[in-house]
Amino acid sequence: MEAKKKKFIKELLTKSKARRESGLYIVDGPKMCKELKAYDIESLFVTKNFLESENAASCKNLLESVAYELVTEADMKQLSDTVTPQGIVALVKQKKNIDIKELLSESKDKTPLLFILEKLQDPGNLGTIVRAAEAAGVTGIVMSSDCADIYSPKVVRSTMGAIFRVPFIITDDLCSFVNEIKAGKYTEGVKFNIYAAHLKGAKEYDLLSYIEPTAVMIGNESKGLSDELTGCADYAVKIPMCGTVESLNAAMAAAIIMFEAGRQRRHK
Amino acid sequence: MEAKKKKFIKELLTKSKARRESGLYIVDGPKMCKELKAYDIESLFVTKNFLESENAASCKNLLESVAYELVTEADMKQLSDTVTPQGIVALVKQKKNIDIKELLSESKDKTPLLFILEKLQDPGNLGTIVRAAEAAGVTGIVMSSDCADIYSPKVVRSTMGAIFRVPFIITDDLCSFVNEIKAGKYTEGVKFNIYAAHLKGAKEYDLLSYIEPTAVMIGNESKGLSDELTGCADYAVKIPMCGTVESLNAAMAAAIIMFEAGRQRRHK
Repeated sequence: MEAKKKKFIKELLTKSKARRESGLYIVDGPKMCKELKAYDIESLFVTKNFLESENAASCKNLLESVAYELVTEADMKQLSDTVTPQGIVALVKQKKNIDIKELLSESKDKTPLLFILEKLQDPGNLGTIVRAAEAAGVTGIVMSSDCADIYSPKVVRSTMGAIFRVPFIITDDLCSFVNEIKAGKYTEGVKFNIYAAHLKGAKEYDLLSYIEPTAVMIGNESKGLSDELTGCADYAVKIPMCGTVESLNAAMAAAIIMFEAGRQRRHK
Repeated sequence: MEAKKKKFIKELLTKSKARRESGLYIVDGPKMCKELKAYDIESLFVTKNFLESENAASCKNLLESVAYELVTEADMKQLSDTVTPQGIVALVKQKKNIDIKELLSESKDKTPLLFILEKLQDPGNLGTIVRAAEAAGVTGIVMSSDCADIYSPKVVRSTMGAIFRVPFIITDDLCSFVNEIKAGKYTEGVKFNIYAAHLKGAKEYDLLSYIEPTAVMIGNESKGLSDELTGCADYAVKIPMCGTVESLNAAMAAAIIMFEAGRQRRHK
């Protein structure tokens, strides 16, 4: 395998700038790769061992529709950021930033439920939130551009594939976005309820309704939501906690609110 | 610092056998150390830099009541398994396995809510579950002895201190335990509802009541609950999921059920 190509992939694994500039990212392992569409793939790398393993069967469609490059085990180690590479790595095109109108119209008959993330820093948290969002039936995720890079290998891996399925938008101006959906700009005047998850929230999260179009805002792991964004909310909401626990992990807090919303929507 | 002592602490950091045999474990950093009681501490190690830092104030009581050993920065690196040690590490006595009768009578007026963990393997998951359990008002956690070691540094750290406050029991025979509480053996004949979290559960978790004495069983991350333990349950319960998500992370699933139980109990 060419040294230049190896170097490029190394950069995609480690640098968000390289990912942003190239519009590419790395998907690692058969479980995630098998979900890829051929037209999203820029390059596909496999080892001989992988082709001869049981796992190859799960990627059969992919291996038949994409011209892959056979690489040595040693090369594969450099294409993967895991300790034990699984023998298949894809170089994948990033999704275009989807249009908010498109996102909200895609949710058609159902009422939109958005989760809005401000400056979320931990890749594991971000990945877990995307995974939980899909499970809870969240319409889409909106991130400030200073969140952890959703295309970093750790985020991609911890979404367990949900990154391919949950629509998301990255924006430089979260506050304007929130004010726009609040006013019903993209939903023919139908206004959103905006809730800000906040340790000092006045409302308990489970005493609010998530049945109407709703957006829930989750802040940075250590600082929480900015005052500016909290100020955009209809309510600051808290998860009541027993004991002397100061806070829940951000992903946990998000998931608890997501599933409360899901619960209400299933039983409405 | 003595080489022998350093070696012993290294073993406590890395080997559950060393922790089990000595009945000791390591607590790292001011945030956790400040919660320790003097009589729980076997030894306390601090650096000069720590004593001169702002963080020392938060541990004032501890530093005044325990004879600490001053160690060099280089030694501190060996006493901590974190990349940037915070300058204070305690060698702490493990809690005695608390008696189940004691645990259930401690919950006095409130109705017990137990979480039962079978062969949970990931330290981060275990720690997160203990942390969420405190926040959700869970009475106690019961673990099979083949769960990840609750006293491992990673678990201790990810509980964020909840390990000091959430009562827990470790048992070799989870099935007998479950059958005993189910029959009301420790609660003067008051029976427990036993729910098994299961991907193929027939009941949705939020259609069951957690108002009576309740125990919820959570299984191993990849294999789920054993058939034997599932067989002890009154109901196998599932968290309904949208999309093509196969499962939630075990800690996430546990937390969602915990907070549903907490929600029902707050609003009963």
